[in-house]
Amino acid sequence: MKSSLKKYAAELLGTFILVLFGCGSAATAGGDLGYLGIAFAFGLSIVALAYVIGPISGCHVNPAVSFAMLLSGKLSGKDFVGYVVSQIIGGIAGAGLLYGIIHSTGKAVTSLGQNGFGAGYGIGISDLMAVVVEIVLSFVFIYTILGVTSSVSTSAVAGLVIGLTLAFVHILGIGLTGTSVNPARSLGPALLIGGKALTQVWVFIIAPLIGAALAAWIYKWMNSGVRSS
Amino acid sequence: MKSSLKKYAAELLGTFILVLFGCGSAATAGGDLGYLGIAFAFGLSIVALAYVIGPISGCHVNPAVSFAMLLSGKLSGKDFVGYVVSQIIGGIAGAGLLYGIIHSTGKAVTSLGQNGFGAGYGIGISDLMAVVVEIVLSFVFIYTILGVTSSVSTSAVAGLVIGLTLAFVHILGIGLTGTSVNPARSLGPALLIGGKALTQVWVFIIAPLIGAALAAWIYKWMNSGVRSS
Amino acid sequence: MKSSLKKYAAELLGTFILVLFGCGSAATAGGDLGYLGIAFAFGLSIVALAYVIGPISGCHVNPAVSFAMLLSGKLSGKDFVGYVVSQIIGGIAGAGLLYGIIHSTGKAVTSLGQNGFGAGYGIGISDLMAVVVEIVLSFVFIYTILGVTSSVSTSAVAGLVIGLTLAFVHILGIGLTGTSVNPARSLGPALLIGGKALTQVWVFIIAPLIGAALAAWIYKWMNSGVRSS
Amino acid sequence: MKSSLKKYAAELLGTFILVLFGCGSAATAGGDLGYLGIAFAFGLSIVALAYVIGPISGCHVNPAVSFAMLLSGKLSGKDFVGYVVSQIIGGIAGAGLLYGIIHSTGKAVTSLGQNGFGAGYGIGISDLMAVVVEIVLSFVFIYTILGVTSSVSTSAVAGLVIGLTLAFVHILGIGLTGTSVNPARSLGPALLIGGKALTQVWVFIIAPLIGAALAAWIYKWMNSGVRSS
Repeated sequence: MKSSLKKYAAELLGTFILVLFGCGSAATAGGDLGYLGIAFAFGLSIVALAYVIGPISGCHVNPAVSFAMLLSGKLSGKDFVGYVVSQIIGGIAGAGLLYGIIHSTGKAVTSLGQNGFGAGYGIGISDLMAVVVEIVLSFVFIYTILGVTSSVSTSAVAGLVIGLTLAFVHILGIGLTGTSVNPARSLGPALLIGGKALTQVWVFIIAPLIGAALAAWIYKWMNSGVRSS
Repeated sequence: MKSSLKKYAAELLGTFILVLFGCGSAATAGGDLGYLGIAFAFGLSIVALAYVIGPISGCHVNPAVSFAMLLSGKLSGKDFVGYVVSQIIGGIAGAGLLYGIIHSTGKAVTSLGQNGFGAGYGIGISDLMAVVVEIVLSFVFIYTILGVTSSVSTSAVAGLVIGLTLAFVHILGIGLTGTSVNPARSLGPALLIGGKALTQVWVFIIAPLIGAALAAWIYKWMNSGVRSS
Repeated sequence: MKSSLKKYAAELLGTFILVLFGCGSAATAGGDLGYLGIAFAFGLSIVALAYVIGPISGCHVNPAVSFAMLLSGKLSGKDFVGYVVSQIIGGIAGAGLLYGIIHSTGKAVTSLGQNGFGAGYGIGISDLMAVVVEIVLSFVFIYTILGVTSSVSTSAVAGLVIGLTLAFVHILGIGLTGTSVNPARSLGPALLIGGKALTQVWVFIIAPLIGAALAAWIYKWMNSGVRSS
Repeated sequence: MKSSLKKYAAELLGTFILVLFGCGSAATAGGDLGYLGIAFAFGLSIVALAYVIGPISGCHVNPAVSFAMLLSGKLSGKDFVGYVVSQIIGGIAGAGLLYGIIHSTGKAVTSLGQNGFGAGYGIGISDLMAVVVEIVLSFVFIYTILGVTSSVSTSAVAGLVIGLTLAFVHILGIGLTGTSVNPARSLGPALLIGGKALTQVWVFIIAPLIGAALAAWIYKWMNSGVRSS
């Protein structure tokens, strides 16, 4: 019981930090940072979290990652629910503090780093392509997680690799969908900022889960019988 | 048979991801990212791929790398053919999805991150220098791969080192030739965008292979009898 | 005695380097570097220092880190005092050499990379939010340090992870408070530049210490009984 | 004899690559890359070289590093001469190819990434401060090398750490002196571009050697009797 509590607390705290720092960097300093800087904000937050909450909960901080672990038999159904609820609360809390920080400047809060697509967002890709892009981004991110965490010999660098992978899916994705690959990261800002972000948020819930399932399935087929070096 | 199928599938998938993310970042967000951001898009995609498809196929995702492995006796002639065909298909598929993404914005597709040189491309170097530059870039990239993969003690960081090396050959090369060092990465975009990219693509097929042969030969001479620490 | 002298000398030298390079990059090249470049200046200086003075003193170079180690029973009260005094002297010396470098250009010294908040600094957050932000930034930085240094298996990458974590708390924080998370880093520039930096410096002394205490306490509760992998 | 030949060839090749890629990035793409991009060009070239020529020669590619190794008793006097001559030839060759690449565009060659200081270079620091800055930059770089290469447990990441350290001394130093820390890196471009770069080059020969001696001496005093973890 206590052990589960700590795991859920770790997932809540981790998602809170990911959203506050990742979305916060995009919302408050995106113009200065550019896509590369925002990508590193998301990516390096995962590097840090992997080494401190990884030993507690595995550092999913993302319902799509937890879904892939559930499908791969590495997470129980009960813990899946506990993880996802914790991640959603953490994401909302992170977006909430970010709202407070920006609100304290006296200017209107127009961005919490929310995801989006279509006219007026990035290069303006279509709805269909937004779904495809999010599936591909999520697949690449989660397939890499499954690979790098499967071998003892790479465990020391796993957190670095996963974080740098999240950075690179942002480098491409920020101009397309803002890069979600994580329903909890999208839901928090969407709930607080409302409008178009909220009407589009279903894409950032469904597509990452499809990408996760695809990653789990392809990983199982392609990497089975392979001994990680 | 099945094992070969998985290796070829891994090479196809890996080259697809490399081209989609690397060329895609250059084509859709190059102005925001600058050369450094594009360099990290290519480099970090290799970091991710090295840890998830490396254990399956060695993660060449590049005919020039496979050529160096063939020359070094680490890849059979049959697998060389299978790898290269898979890489070329993967590169075309990556460029194809990228075409679809950009096309969905309703604007004309003018860039798929294709390589080039001469007037109107980067600083406008000569044909001869384009060949020389691509040979040097490819040599450095592949010579480093041969070095870092030869020792067990560095195997955990090999993927990081190879990816960061691909990043740094891009930092210099983007303004000169766009940095190919990889015939499959150049062929996909050139076939779909046509024009000058297609008439110049022979440089990005021949030069990386020469660089690869040079790397294999110098590595054999210079690093033989050296025990990697 | 001699051993303590070396430890204190290492902390002084390390804090000198951190302030000179981190604050120096912000003050002399901030416009070119942007937030991401400044973040890497601070972060990579810690990467370097961790591997060369880490074996001597643990490479705190930060009174808040030393405070967390004191609370965690990893640093004696006597050494805590010796460390903090050394760090403060090092920070002042770093700011002093930076002053001399900029002064030698013949222009007025208007910035030594000092921290700040409110109107005219970054996006202009409130006093309360400045305190909250510095507590959160410090908590994340120091909680990660406690996590990554607790396991033998990650000791080779600990310096990399800690440095990259310092980079990412800067990516968000530069536009909010300039990111202190380190009283010695703030005190040196504030003493030499005076004015608003000096009247606000209490925030950058108190808040990092609160963040450190929070990190030590949450680490103790959440990570106890967890075997780091 | 043959072994020495390979070591000298490795140092020549490595310095050639460092100068071509580092100085080349600054000269051909500095405006796009900014200081951060140039810093990564230099730093990541060392990451790559460390893992492929490190096992042959130790990957000094820098007379100041060789000088520190001589003072530390890790390099013979005969090899010191052989290394330095090889590094100087490699640096000139790298600058020479860079000259040819830029010359092929038909425009005048005005920059080969040469170092400098004073009016018209960076922020325009004084002669005295240029010497001080280069001593400090070289000290930090070489002191870190001595630290990270002294322990078996960090050998897998040593190349990463050394390269990232070279990156961060560039982040601060580019706007001050262009960052030499390496006489061979400065001499090649200065000889080919002439003018002010040649009259100032003595600073970039003397100061790095002083920094190296300081690093060797402080390392010996401060890190003696310390068991690297």
